[in-house]
Amino acid sequence: MYRAGAAMIVPRLWKAIPLVRRSSSAASSVHKLFQNNADFPSRHIGPRDSEQTEMLDFIGYRTLEEMTDKAVPETIKLKRELNIEEPTAEHELMIRIKKIAEKNKIWRSYIGMGYHNCCTPHTIMRNIFENPGWTTQYTPYQPEVAQGRLEGLLNYQTMVSDLTGMEVANASLLDEGTAAAEALSLCYRQNKRRKLFISHKLHPQTKSVVETRASSLGLQVVHGNVLSVDFSSRDYAGVLLQYPDTDGNIMDFSELSKNAHSNGTLVVCATDLLALTLLRPPSEFDADVAVGTSQRFGVPLGYGGPHAGFFACRQSLVRLMPGRMIGVTRDINGLDAYRLALQTREQHIRRDKATSNICTAQALLANMSAMYAVYHGPQGLKEIATKVHDATLLLAAGAKSVGHVVMNPLFFDTIRLSPNCDVSIIQERARQREINLRYYEDGTVGISLDETVRVADIEDLLSTLGYHGSASELVEESVQEIQSMSLLNSQFKRTSPYLTHPVFNSYHSESRIVRYMKMLENKDISLVHSMIPLGSCTMKLNSTTEMMPCTLKHFTDIHPFVPLDQARGYAQLFEELEKDLCEITGYDKISFQPNSGAQGEYAGLRAIKSYLEAKDEGHRNICLIPVSAHGTNPASAQMAGMQVEAINVCKDGTIDMRHLIAKAEKHKENLACLMITYPSTFGVFEETVADVCKIIHDQGGQVYLDGANMNAQVGVCRPGDYGSDVSHLNLHKTFCIPHGGGGPGMGPIGVKEHLAPFLPSHPVVDPLASLGTSSKSFGVVSAAPFGSSAILPISWAYIKMMGAKGLRKATQVAILNANYMSKRLSKHYHTLFKGKNSLVAHEFIIDVRPFKKTANIEPVDLAKRLMDYGFHAPTMSWPVAGTLMIEPTESEDKQELDRFCEALICIRKEIQDIEEGRMDIRTNPLKMAPHTQAQVITSEWNRPYSRELAAFPAPFVRPESKIWPTVGRIDDIYGDKHLVCTCPPILPAYSF
Amino acid sequence: MYRAGAAMIVPRLWKAIPLVRRSSSAASSVHKLFQNNADFPSRHIGPRDSEQTEMLDFIGYRTLEEMTDKAVPETIKLKRELNIEEPTAEHELMIRIKKIAEKNKIWRSYIGMGYHNCCTPHTIMRNIFENPGWTTQYTPYQPEVAQGRLEGLLNYQTMVSDLTGMEVANASLLDEGTAAAEALSLCYRQNKRRKLFISHKLHPQTKSVVETRASSLGLQVVHGNVLSVDFSSRDYAGVLLQYPDTDGNIMDFSELSKNAHSNGTLVVCATDLLALTLLRPPSEFDADVAVGTSQRFGVPLGYGGPHAGFFACRQSLVRLMPGRMIGVTRDINGLDAYRLALQTREQHIRRDKATSNICTAQALLANMSAMYAVYHGPQGLKEIATKVHDATLLLAAGAKSVGHVVMNPLFFDTIRLSPNCDVSIIQERARQREINLRYYEDGTVGISLDETVRVADIEDLLSTLGYHGSASELVEESVQEIQSMSLLNSQFKRTSPYLTHPVFNSYHSESRIVRYMKMLENKDISLVHSMIPLGSCTMKLNSTTEMMPCTLKHFTDIHPFVPLDQARGYAQLFEELEKDLCEITGYDKISFQPNSGAQGEYAGLRAIKSYLEAKDEGHRNICLIPVSAHGTNPASAQMAGMQVEAINVCKDGTIDMRHLIAKAEKHKENLACLMITYPSTFGVFEETVADVCKIIHDQGGQVYLDGANMNAQVGVCRPGDYGSDVSHLNLHKTFCIPHGGGGPGMGPIGVKEHLAPFLPSHPVVDPLASLGTSSKSFGVVSAAPFGSSAILPISWAYIKMMGAKGLRKATQVAILNANYMSKRLSKHYHTLFKGKNSLVAHEFIIDVRPFKKTANIEPVDLAKRLMDYGFHAPTMSWPVAGTLMIEPTESEDKQELDRFCEALICIRKEIQDIEEGRMDIRTNPLKMAPHTQAQVITSEWNRPYSRELAAFPAPFVRPESKIWPTVGRIDDIYGDKHLVCTCPPILPAYSF
Repeated sequence: MYRAGAAMIVPRLWKAIPLVRRSSSAASSVHKLFQNNADFPSRHIGPRDSEQTEMLDFIGYRTLEEMTDKAVPETIKLKRELNIEEPTAEHELMIRIKKIAEKNKIWRSYIGMGYHNCCTPHTIMRNIFENPGWTTQYTPYQPEVAQGRLEGLLNYQTMVSDLTGMEVANASLLDEGTAAAEALSLCYRQNKRRKLFISHKLHPQTKSVVETRASSLGLQVVHGNVLSVDFSSRDYAGVLLQYPDTDGNIMDFSELSKNAHSNGTLVVCATDLLALTLLRPPSEFDADVAVGTSQRFGVPLGYGGPHAGFFACRQSLVRLMPGRMIGVTRDINGLDAYRLALQTREQHIRRDKATSNICTAQALLANMSAMYAVYHGPQGLKEIATKVHDATLLLAAGAKSVGHVVMNPLFFDTIRLSPNCDVSIIQERARQREINLRYYEDGTVGISLDETVRVADIEDLLSTLGYHGSASELVEESVQEIQSMSLLNSQFKRTSPYLTHPVFNSYHSESRIVRYMKMLENKDISLVHSMIPLGSCTMKLNSTTEMMPCTLKHFTDIHPFVPLDQARGYAQLFEELEKDLCEITGYDKISFQPNSGAQGEYAGLRAIKSYLEAKDEGHRNICLIPVSAHGTNPASAQMAGMQVEAINVCKDGTIDMRHLIAKAEKHKENLACLMITYPSTFGVFEETVADVCKIIHDQGGQVYLDGANMNAQVGVCRPGDYGSDVSHLNLHKTFCIPHGGGGPGMGPIGVKEHLAPFLPSHPVVDPLASLGTSSKSFGVVSAAPFGSSAILPISWAYIKMMGAKGLRKATQVAILNANYMSKRLSKHYHTLFKGKNSLVAHEFIIDVRPFKKTANIEPVDLAKRLMDYGFHAPTMSWPVAGTLMIEPTESEDKQELDRFCEALICIRKEIQDIEEGRMDIRTNPLKMAPHTQAQVITSEWNRPYSRELAAFPAPFVRPESKIWPTVGRIDDIYGDKHLVCTCPPILPAYSF
Repeated sequence: MYRAGAAMIVPRLWKAIPLVRRSSSAASSVHKLFQNNADFPSRHIGPRDSEQTEMLDFIGYRTLEEMTDKAVPETIKLKRELNIEEPTAEHELMIRIKKIAEKNKIWRSYIGMGYHNCCTPHTIMRNIFENPGWTTQYTPYQPEVAQGRLEGLLNYQTMVSDLTGMEVANASLLDEGTAAAEALSLCYRQNKRRKLFISHKLHPQTKSVVETRASSLGLQVVHGNVLSVDFSSRDYAGVLLQYPDTDGNIMDFSELSKNAHSNGTLVVCATDLLALTLLRPPSEFDADVAVGTSQRFGVPLGYGGPHAGFFACRQSLVRLMPGRMIGVTRDINGLDAYRLALQTREQHIRRDKATSNICTAQALLANMSAMYAVYHGPQGLKEIATKVHDATLLLAAGAKSVGHVVMNPLFFDTIRLSPNCDVSIIQERARQREINLRYYEDGTVGISLDETVRVADIEDLLSTLGYHGSASELVEESVQEIQSMSLLNSQFKRTSPYLTHPVFNSYHSESRIVRYMKMLENKDISLVHSMIPLGSCTMKLNSTTEMMPCTLKHFTDIHPFVPLDQARGYAQLFEELEKDLCEITGYDKISFQPNSGAQGEYAGLRAIKSYLEAKDEGHRNICLIPVSAHGTNPASAQMAGMQVEAINVCKDGTIDMRHLIAKAEKHKENLACLMITYPSTFGVFEETVADVCKIIHDQGGQVYLDGANMNAQVGVCRPGDYGSDVSHLNLHKTFCIPHGGGGPGMGPIGVKEHLAPFLPSHPVVDPLASLGTSSKSFGVVSAAPFGSSAILPISWAYIKMMGAKGLRKATQVAILNANYMSKRLSKHYHTLFKGKNSLVAHEFIIDVRPFKKTANIEPVDLAKRLMDYGFHAPTMSWPVAGTLMIEPTESEDKQELDRFCEALICIRKEIQDIEEGRMDIRTNPLKMAPHTQAQVITSEWNRPYSRELAAFPAPFVRPESKIWPTVGRIDDIYGDKHLVCTCPPILPAYSF
């Protein structure tokens, strides 16, 4: 059968052999050959090689290298390959990350302190957290194609409002610590007083975050027993207390509240949602603000995050409330619809006058927590809480029976014990049982129970405490004792109803909740449908392999405050990721604590400030920021206690160097830093960036480089090389963490060596511990020591699977895609800014201002009309009003880019029809967009254009795959005038 | 703070204490209290308790027990609770099943024999296999709401056609063994010859399955070397060969094929899809049929299944082809559309004249494999195959270099070695490295490589063989040797193209394939949208927790032929599930081998036959089957070599007892068995079932009870108690395995003790091994010893989470739901059959025959109109023509039942409008249903009813949650006349 005479073909594998022989080691070559299944870069990068060639040809270049060479300024080019290990294949990556994960030891943690184990309903885990239909959504700035997640978040607000008893709640903040800090800032903004009182019974991390924030705002913080504070000096802006407190105590704050209010002081209450199902809510002792975390509502511990912090307040404070808020409004047809409310409070509009620098929420986690409440309903939640409380009562009875002193008169799930023996005995017994407790410095012990606790766990805890009977014997012995301790026999027992809305009382079977989740999912455009070309937001592929590690038990089920030897897996992960990120950025050290970009900015500026102070240059407080900067920049600078000075930009979008030089010179005595974004927010690689850095350094300032546009730099140039001192890295942009419909994000900061001692610390687990006394941290920015640790495997995996070549190629294709689109659109839309050689960076701005005059068409009309074509709009009117900023990312292939370009070109023709009088100037497909099913499937169609044009305006918009907006154009103004931030009376949609 | 004087409330936990004191053990009570978080039954069962009460009230009963008492015949009632352990909570279940899973040892298996490890692309695993949008679909009998999975399956057919080179392929069969058996049956049906020749180089399980099938069809099987067979006697129906064969050899069958054909013998080729990317396809040596498994295309080993078997043949044989086939047809608008083709071949229409008893395919797995090909494309598949081949070449060179004899002149991925040492040395070295090889009885060794093999694995294999150098050294040494062995240097090198269709060349980035999968998913109605009330198919909740274990590595990554001590986890799972299923059914023994209901029927009947033969009653061959039986029953009886005699049913749907008695009497000498379904296919608990069983037994026959309706019996009555000898259990109906769009199913059989020795065996891993010589198995029905093992955790989990009470309650609520709907519909539709007390069982049949006369409306019109209301149609015209059979299952709640009833009531009014002349008899919403977007969003609407009535016919059909049919009504006849079973030229939909 084997034809010996036939021409021999050398099989693939061996073709490389001559090459091998030339190399020193044949082995490495065989390995390489067998490794070319590490094809992840070609899965991540959208355009095939042939498409890349075609697109390069179209824009006039032969190779990616040639294009890169022309796009990136010579002065900043990285002239070597990144030192990143060879790429790992997807299946091998999973083996590798599992090994790392398993270095974490999963003990039972009853540490409490704001973090509790819980049972994430599997159906929520799989159908929300593990479902790209939910995770890859963008922030719901385009509400007509975001009603699903907006409804989820409105459920969240309703849940928080109901449980806390407060009138309004927002759609989540980053964590409990920052929520508390925001609350105290609110107090300050409200009454302009500069003193705060905070309870000595707060969680330590809450205390630290609040103190850190207060210090840069110039606010004085007083600690102590809140029950004995004297407000009569009338100089306290607010008082922050905790209920139940960090030791588990439940106190009556009615009197305190009365006193505070009568002296003009606001009352902020940190609280626990599960406890509030049994406990009188903070509203009943008249708190003004309630904050906390909804983590224990179905979100895994994840070594500290991501979880959603919550924030609720009385109606009168709503316009001072920080963060995202969902409101009910109406659409063009007068039907109820949801959208982000009161955006005028926010940094992207108010800049340094904003209520806060916050622009990332924890939407995905808030949605999970809300869905947990929908799944369990008020009765189910109450049962869970009762069981947790019962278990704690039993434990307390056991502790007492063997002679420990239970220090809490009343408690929900947490007790603090003064042991009748040396604490080391208890510690040793706990260690043997793989149990973590909270060990106070004074030898007392805290134990905090949660819904996962079973009888066997209680018995293990009892024996840890030295009780040798069974749980059931203990029950028999302690009936009286237990009854006397129950908070249900106290004045604190909750009597007010909650979660009475049908949404919390309809979806308790799995069939029902799965359909509810799917119905919401299918209302929203996400990356599973089409590209989301959001300039400055880098909506790229979030691959399954990157996401999978996040739900490994060894990453999810670990409390942030376990001893470090139980978190060796995380330690390795952080170390490896830090090493790679340093190599990518040119920095020397990374802090993972900031859990959003804005948080990173704040942390970076604080580090700069501390560095300057350490040099005795604490007076330096001027922060130069180009007017083109993202609104977060000035908002963060303001929060960091700096004074913002704006730098002009030229007509071509570049920094006005003369203005910069003048300002730097003018403020040289007090210059703290410059904040810039690179490539610029105008989508251009400015030639002068290295010079800019030098100018600042020469005047004694530091350079903060906003990492939002890092996706144009990875493997191509490094901020640390060309003069920046510190950057935050939006891991949810460049490094593949999905946007989750508006969070979680991660904003770790990279710094040069000299700033390293000033990075964030933590009162429980100090990330700077290795520095010892040379640590000079400015303080704490997040509740968790390493921010949202549980999503770091995503970025780790991305880097490991891409390798140096893949990362550089991704950057190059991102630039190629932007330039291809810009050129394809050039006959129809003017790209506002370009760099040298007429190239843009990874994004570009098209000017749609002229259409206002020619056709009365505004950017919002184009944005809404794009929905009819199945697309999410690009970034609208930022950084330049009247424009659209398009960022395709490397993950979109030519076909998708072409589709998007065709949509814009079709729309341009529709505008032309208006311009040239063929289409009505008021009633036209743009002004009436987006078109809903109800609008086009009506007997009364009386528009001067066809239904087909409305709904299927291009050949590629097909009935079988069309994504429909579920509401008509939103009336924003109506919503802000008639603010409703909880679930409206039942919509027929609920009974779908 | 604690008001001691307040009235004490005893906390929940302690309320039970008096009860505790009365009971013997307080401990058990505490445990019970802490266990009430095992709330899975209330998640699985749709209606809340309050709804149950309301519904009971509506049908006139106070309690479920009262209703059950009236519904179920006294004679068969189970008068005790099932002996099933207390229910496990969802989170504890995962801990428990993981522990069981981890008893399986995951060694590297290079055993081959039709099962190969592979890399399931994570994005396919998560977005198809772990996605209820794909798994909970029903078989695509309603193509207008099933175009997504139909497209997926058409891709599968195209892939199989292309790779095998055959003209047509079907949409999968159960496994390679049954595909081969079906192929030989086809040969027999084609030329009516009764002799088969099969190669001695087949996989042993293929051989066994074929022999077992042949024996009951009365066909003679001859084994031997196919290259030397003499066909000139012209009495061979077909010859079955394997390419590459089980030892890995690649032979030229051109001459053989010529000889066979010139003598009227058909050539069937078992083959390997991955090999065919490099090898000349079977079509090029003129094979008539090609069969095999597509497992290695992205489907995990799963200890033997589920995987998709494939079947392809020449066009001229298409009408004899078994199983599901997707064809392209056109819809009412003349557009391309997909649907099941040539259904007239199938058992549900042809009964015992059908081409096969097959009615379950492996749709989900076929879709995964097709998506694997879409993801990799022809180039990617070729690269994978080349790497596997290269690795095998290297291994062969290494083996030769240390003196082993490689017995294969040419090979793809498998070699057979004659070792130069005692095989036990190799065995021991392999054991140390946790490697499984194939050890032949003659001391030779088989090694089969796959795409997961890395250099380190090759080096481990080499050292197992005694080669002590590195892989790279070996490369250097063996270039010549390797080149001379490569099949790319042989006449077998493939030159014909494959997978040239755009669908296999467009979705290679993850963004693209995710969007493609989502687009297909969103075309289809599944349980994530609405109830699918398919009578006899039990479309109930398939919960996330049940599904999760199926993708645990310790269940997925295990070869079916590993030594038993590596599969202890599976053994425990089988044992526990068997115990529970025996308790539920009243049987004594379970065989898990049958991987579909039809397969179970066949196996059960063969066991009966063998039992009779062992009693020297082998002449008994009459099988009585009521005319109301499912078509599979007679088809299976015919395949099992029995002669079918029909039993009449009375007008009320019950068995005609006089006819039964007469027939049993008449055939008493030759009576083998009776096949019945209980409750009957008419949805009624017949009072006489115990009598029926007795009549059969009295005449020396056995009773086969079809388990399709087991969902009405669990916990209420047991077939094994009231007289049945054997049943299959559709685990994909009653026991929660999802339908997956038409498979995987599982059809294990339960038998009474006397039939146990006759259950299926297996040539490699014998499930009857423990019986020793008392095993009298009739043979082998599936390729894998325990069928689709990897989905058994689903049913195991369901039982463990429900417990005895939950299981019984599920049955009761299933009956309640059916009776509630029947009553709610009674003013509008006549329920055809009812039992005593006017109760139906768990399903009911509504009569729509009258509307044909009054309004020219047929069942299909109602079915299609239901789609406009967002529902999948019930079972149509079965078991009675002109009716609809509705089975709500226990998982649907009252609201959903009401919605469905309202839809039917609205439709009844629409019919009335026709009857009373208000609506045109030809152009009306029923006849024109379903309505697509393209139809209603057109400028030219000229129908006598509104667009709104077409698309939104009820208040609950709302634009924001409407599920649209993606094609108009299908033209079945056109499709069968113009048969096209591969992807048509590119549709614009591809470029969505």
